[in-house]
Amino acid sequence: MTRREAVDRWLDTPKVRNTILAVILFNAVVLGLETSGRVMAAAGPLVTALDRACLGVFVLEIALKLYARGGRFFRDGWNLFDFTIVGIALLPAAQGLSVLRALRILRLLRVVSVAPALRRVVEGFITALPGMGSVFLLMGLIFYIASVMATKLFGGAFPDWFGTLGLSAYSLFQIMTLESWSMGIVRPVMEVYPLAWLFFVPFIMVTTFAVVNLLVGLIVNSMQTAHSAEEVALTESYRDEVLDRLRKIEATLQKGDRGPPQ
Amino acid sequence: MTRREAVDRWLDTPKVRNTILAVILFNAVVLGLETSGRVMAAAGPLVTALDRACLGVFVLEIALKLYARGGRFFRDGWNLFDFTIVGIALLPAAQGLSVLRALRILRLLRVVSVAPALRRVVEGFITALPGMGSVFLLMGLIFYIASVMATKLFGGAFPDWFGTLGLSAYSLFQIMTLESWSMGIVRPVMEVYPLAWLFFVPFIMVTTFAVVNLLVGLIVNSMQTAHSAEEVALTESYRDEVLDRLRKIEATLQKGDRGPPQ
Amino acid sequence: MTRREAVDRWLDTPKVRNTILAVILFNAVVLGLETSGRVMAAAGPLVTALDRACLGVFVLEIALKLYARGGRFFRDGWNLFDFTIVGIALLPAAQGLSVLRALRILRLLRVVSVAPALRRVVEGFITALPGMGSVFLLMGLIFYIASVMATKLFGGAFPDWFGTLGLSAYSLFQIMTLESWSMGIVRPVMEVYPLAWLFFVPFIMVTTFAVVNLLVGLIVNSMQTAHSAEEVALTESYRDEVLDRLRKIEATLQKGDRGPPQ
Amino acid sequence: MTRREAVDRWLDTPKVRNTILAVILFNAVVLGLETSGRVMAAAGPLVTALDRACLGVFVLEIALKLYARGGRFFRDGWNLFDFTIVGIALLPAAQGLSVLRALRILRLLRVVSVAPALRRVVEGFITALPGMGSVFLLMGLIFYIASVMATKLFGGAFPDWFGTLGLSAYSLFQIMTLESWSMGIVRPVMEVYPLAWLFFVPFIMVTTFAVVNLLVGLIVNSMQTAHSAEEVALTESYRDEVLDRLRKIEATLQKGDRGPPQ
Repeated sequence: MTRREAVDRWLDTPKVRNTILAVILFNAVVLGLETSGRVMAAAGPLVTALDRACLGVFVLEIALKLYARGGRFFRDGWNLFDFTIVGIALLPAAQGLSVLRALRILRLLRVVSVAPALRRVVEGFITALPGMGSVFLLMGLIFYIASVMATKLFGGAFPDWFGTLGLSAYSLFQIMTLESWSMGIVRPVMEVYPLAWLFFVPFIMVTTFAVVNLLVGLIVNSMQTAHSAEEVALTESYRDEVLDRLRKIEATLQKGDRGPPQ
Repeated sequence: MTRREAVDRWLDTPKVRNTILAVILFNAVVLGLETSGRVMAAAGPLVTALDRACLGVFVLEIALKLYARGGRFFRDGWNLFDFTIVGIALLPAAQGLSVLRALRILRLLRVVSVAPALRRVVEGFITALPGMGSVFLLMGLIFYIASVMATKLFGGAFPDWFGTLGLSAYSLFQIMTLESWSMGIVRPVMEVYPLAWLFFVPFIMVTTFAVVNLLVGLIVNSMQTAHSAEEVALTESYRDEVLDRLRKIEATLQKGDRGPPQ
Repeated sequence: MTRREAVDRWLDTPKVRNTILAVILFNAVVLGLETSGRVMAAAGPLVTALDRACLGVFVLEIALKLYARGGRFFRDGWNLFDFTIVGIALLPAAQGLSVLRALRILRLLRVVSVAPALRRVVEGFITALPGMGSVFLLMGLIFYIASVMATKLFGGAFPDWFGTLGLSAYSLFQIMTLESWSMGIVRPVMEVYPLAWLFFVPFIMVTTFAVVNLLVGLIVNSMQTAHSAEEVALTESYRDEVLDRLRKIEATLQKGDRGPPQ
Repeated sequence: MTRREAVDRWLDTPKVRNTILAVILFNAVVLGLETSGRVMAAAGPLVTALDRACLGVFVLEIALKLYARGGRFFRDGWNLFDFTIVGIALLPAAQGLSVLRALRILRLLRVVSVAPALRRVVEGFITALPGMGSVFLLMGLIFYIASVMATKLFGGAFPDWFGTLGLSAYSLFQIMTLESWSMGIVRPVMEVYPLAWLFFVPFIMVTTFAVVNLLVGLIVNSMQTAHSAEEVALTESYRDEVLDRLRKIEATLQKGDRGPPQ
């Protein structure tokens, strides 16, 4: 066993994994405390120092993993995920942008890559996505078409809601979620263009129906996966055995018919 | 092979299909740019010219298809769909109505008729509709009845919401989507008619329940389609084989009973 | 065949049924026209007369059915339904209350009792209800408990929303539908009672979860009904046949063993 | 039979159970009347006395159960539930806090522990929870991360909505339920931070998708439970019998082959 393999094994021991998990959770609490003005006024430097210490542990862990696994490190999606999240955390030290500082809490997502139960849920989410690709593409089409139409039709009179393609897409997303679609958007628009409902009501129906179809597709897929995994395998081995035995019985009987024991 | 058949085949080659797909997507971008005031100020004539060029390609394609297929062209629903969409695009050149200009973006929907994956999703949507026909009819009934009642009961005091059958139907659609139904509509109505909730709360319950039943129907249908397609066919051929073999064994045995080999 | 039976048969002929259906639909249009001020100003007496004529047809039909079937008439739920709806329509002539006049449009619901497809959908809805009885009862309990608590806790400060048990139940229903629950109700309440979210957020979670369970129950029930109706019957007859044949073969073989043909 | 066992049996007789149920329901009505100012003005002391009498019955019942079952009493979850609920009711007598007085209506929840149908529904809810544990944990993570980010990014400009971790979590819960998310929260925020939609729109998509996955998981679980309980057991006993009989037939045939009757 080379030193690299020894490091790799040591990183996979429960003790190390649990320590990392504990540091992640502790770091989450520290970053939570950072949002409190009172705590920062009383113990700001301590909180910042603790956050840096946690970050140090993560950097060390990833450096060790990189040393132990080399190029293989980047072949695992979850490693890339950890690398990016910790990398983001290193940027603000250089630049100090408030958005990048806020992104540091994303480190808590490392819990997902460490805890197998959460990992399975997220992997379940991700494997469900490709099956919905066509419906997502179709919804993208509908949104683009509806945005262009809404911008051309209502952009002049309602620049805040439909002034550009981007504003229209946002407003249509709001309408798809049914939030204030009528009292907030469509009724005011209908005061200028009384036939505007001819655009918005079909839009709501089509997008809602598409969302419902996504849901139905998800349910049917999950069901079939659950079904086939257990039952079908069992059923098929049983079927093969029944047919096999029946064929043997027939063969025995026919042998007995042709050349029977005297 | 006649010249017509040659044209038909050429239109179906991947090269032509992909070119058409590219023109559709390029046209979508052009129509998107048309919504931007800055782009139109800087390069308005160019954008319009590019749009006309795309339209020319579509008209040419459909003319060739019409020549190649003749009357058969109109038997395919997707051809009719393409024909109508391109036809709409030709109208505004004559009239210049802003609504017709906005409808030109519908050309992007041709992507659906060109891409098989999207085509299958839309065909799936359409085949799901007839099974829901009765529930839709029932919801239409409920909406008509509720609109007449709301107009008669609340039309006098709230002409903006329930003044005519059309306004009532729109307001009830809003209430069915649960958008601002209480704070926006029913609470103000209840200040004049304190018992109005006796109309609106049951309306919400009935329509929501009907929508849920639509959803349940969709799920059960999809499930059965998925189920029967694969499994049942396999099961039945297996069953037939088992019964067949059993019958043969019985026949062999009975033959052996009656006239046994001495 | 007595005269009663002859009338009963005649009422069931397609010609009579379709005539009644046509009268119902015509009546619906007439009642729709009644909501239009312009139509009533121009041809009010005509519209009223047409409505009375339709009502006359319904009264005649029900009188004939009562004559033909006697006491059996009231044993069918749909007959009771028709009788009540037409009965309601007769009341306003005597009293002239606007609510009773508005209820006349409920006659259009007779379409459901005449059209078998709609009848089946409604019967499907109704048979789904008892299975959800326990969940409905539980939701009733939750609503009563939450109403009492909301009235005691917030009734003093917000008499418009939580002043009485009835007002609380209505506000909680609105909150369950998620309509303006936060911006409209809970945020204002939290300005007086900062811990009010401890009551409302769990209420939303529990009721939403109960509604989701209703939906899940409906789906699972529909699925099992659809499943068992077709497949299980087929499967069981197949199973019985296989076991039957296997038993016979065994019997034949054992007979051959004990007393073999010499 | 000791006296303890006799008391235990007597408490389980239908007469006693129904009396307790009646007292619970009567108590619910009494507590409902307490919310009415008019009733309390007219008969306040009577209502309070009736409530105390009901409480007395519950205390007596639990004291008897404690006597009859001793330590075993606390092993049943429903007994603990009853004990806590009645215990809460005893507290306000000592302290008089209005919140504790409002909690007295929770006694009505004892109906659930008394009525087996409701008990089964609640037990169904509770058994469904562990299967959703991972998704709940994941949603907790997302909420914590999003709350920290929202507080850091928007807390300064919008202290009422995102000033502290708690306020952010509440606002994000409101946004997840889609209540006024755009018109009420995100559009105002976007006036200060135009890119705020980059945070909120993905948040809505991720949480909605997680909720949908919860629903799908619930449906698939219920389906499998319902499926396996009935059908699988039946199928397996059938399979075993078929294979058993086939093996016997083979054995008989082979015996006949080797040593056939002469």
